[in-house]
Amino acid sequence: MTASNAFDPASIEVIAFDVFGTVVDWHSGIAAEVERLLPGVDGSAFALAWRAGYQPAMKAVMARIEAGEGGFTLLDELHLSILEGVLSDYSIGEDRLDRAGRRELNRAWHRLPAWPDAVAGLARLKRRYTICPLSNGNIGLLTNMAKRAGLPWDCVLSAEVFKAYKPDPRTYLGVAGIFDLPPNRVMLAAAHHSDLAAARHCGLATAYIERPAEFGPGQPKDVSPQPGNDLHARDIGHLADLLGC
Amino acid sequence: MTASNAFDPASIEVIAFDVFGTVVDWHSGIAAEVERLLPGVDGSAFALAWRAGYQPAMKAVMARIEAGEGGFTLLDELHLSILEGVLSDYSIGEDRLDRAGRRELNRAWHRLPAWPDAVAGLARLKRRYTICPLSNGNIGLLTNMAKRAGLPWDCVLSAEVFKAYKPDPRTYLGVAGIFDLPPNRVMLAAAHHSDLAAARHCGLATAYIERPAEFGPGQPKDVSPQPGNDLHARDIGHLADLLGC
Repeated sequence: MTASNAFDPASIEVIAFDVFGTVVDWHSGIAAEVERLLPGVDGSAFALAWRAGYQPAMKAVMARIEAGEGGFTLLDELHLSILEGVLSDYSIGEDRLDRAGRRELNRAWHRLPAWPDAVAGLARLKRRYTICPLSNGNIGLLTNMAKRAGLPWDCVLSAEVFKAYKPDPRTYLGVAGIFDLPPNRVMLAAAHHSDLAAARHCGLATAYIERPAEFGPGQPKDVSPQPGNDLHARDIGHLADLLGC
Repeated sequence: MTASNAFDPASIEVIAFDVFGTVVDWHSGIAAEVERLLPGVDGSAFALAWRAGYQPAMKAVMARIEAGEGGFTLLDELHLSILEGVLSDYSIGEDRLDRAGRRELNRAWHRLPAWPDAVAGLARLKRRYTICPLSNGNIGLLTNMAKRAGLPWDCVLSAEVFKAYKPDPRTYLGVAGIFDLPPNRVMLAAAHHSDLAAARHCGLATAYIERPAEFGPGQPKDVSPQPGNDLHARDIGHLADLLGC
C-alpha cells in the first residue's frame, strides 16, 4: 500500500482504539456467558442477535438527542434494553432469568476477553505512544473490562467523556483536544472501516485491524484492505511491528 | 480512632485519589522547573505563589459558571492565566520567558514527581481495588503525569469528565455513578480535610493522607487527625497496610 509506505510513525503521539471487536472478542465472550446463564440456548446466535440490536438502538438514541427529546444514554442501559428485546424474542421470561440474572448477563460486556494478541501488543505500543480506548462503551464498562483483561490503557476515553457517540466528530476531535494535539497526531485503530472513515474525515491517522472471526467462526468477515487507511495490520502485535515498536 | 476501628475494607470497591499534594509533590516539581527555566528565581517562593493563585482563580471560574457567564475551563488554562499574573508580579517579561517558554513552564504540572511511596502503594491497592484520580486537573494533564510518573490508574477521572470541579457533589457522586455503586462503596483519599469533608457529605468513605512537606520544607503542614475520616494514613503505602492489601 502506497499510503502505508509514506506513513511516518513519529508523527503520532496518541493511538485510540475502538474496543468491541477490535481489542476484545465480544462474540465468544457473550456466547459463553449466555450458555452459562441460559443453558440450552445457542450462545453464538444469541450474541449475534444482541449485537445486531446495537446499531438500530444507537441510531434511535442519536435521533432522540438530535430532536432534543433525550439525553446521553450509557451503553450499559442500551445493552439492557436490547437484551430485554432479545429475551422476549427467545420467549425467555423472568421465571427463567430474573432481574438480577439479566443484570449479570448484561455485565458480560464488562467481562469480555481480549483477543490473544491484544495485551502484549498494547504493552509494546504503550512504550512509545499514549494509548486509550475510544469506544461508545461507558467509562465504568471499559474500566472494569480493562482491569479484568489486563488492557494497559494510559487513560479511558469513551463517548461518555464527550457526551457524543462515534461517529460524531466530537469524539475523534475530542481525543485530540484532550491531549492538546492537532488531529493528525492522533491515530484511530479499529476493525471497522466506517469508524476509520469518520476519524479520517476529522483528520486523524487510521489503522485497520483485521478481525476475521469478529462474528464467530460461522460468519467470516471480509478483512481486505481499503484505500485511505494509513496502516493495515493483521492484529495489534502487527500494528506494533508496523510502527516499529 | 474509633471510626477507623469500625471501618470494613471489604465495603469499598473504588478508591479515588486527590492528586496535587496527595499523590504528586507539586512544590518540589514546580520549584525545580522554575529554577531550570528561570535561573536565579527562588523556585520555592514562585511555586507557592503560583499555587496560591489556584483557589481564587477556581472560585472565580465557579462563580462565572454559577452566573451563567462562563463554561467549564481546563486547569491547564487556569494555570496559564495564574502564571501570567505571577510572572508579572516578578517583573518577568516576554523577553525573559517567551510564549513557548511560558507554555513549557505551564506543562510542568504534567511532569510533577510522585511522592516516593505513591507508585508502590497504588500498585498494592490496585490488586484489590479499582483506583483512579479524582482531580480538578484535566484528563490530558493527569494522563501525561501518570504515564511519566508510572501511576498505575485503572482509569483517569477528572473534573473534566463531570464538567464540575471539586468540591461540587457532582464530582464525588460522579465517581460512584461511573461504577454504578452506592457512594459508600467509594473512598476518597486526600491530603486535604476540606476535600474529604465534601466527599463525606456525599456519603463516600474517606482516608486522610499525611503530606507534611506539601508546601516545602520551609512550611511544615499540620497533619493531625480530624474526626470523621474513616482512615488516617502516613502515606499511600500505609493506606495499603490499613486496608490489608
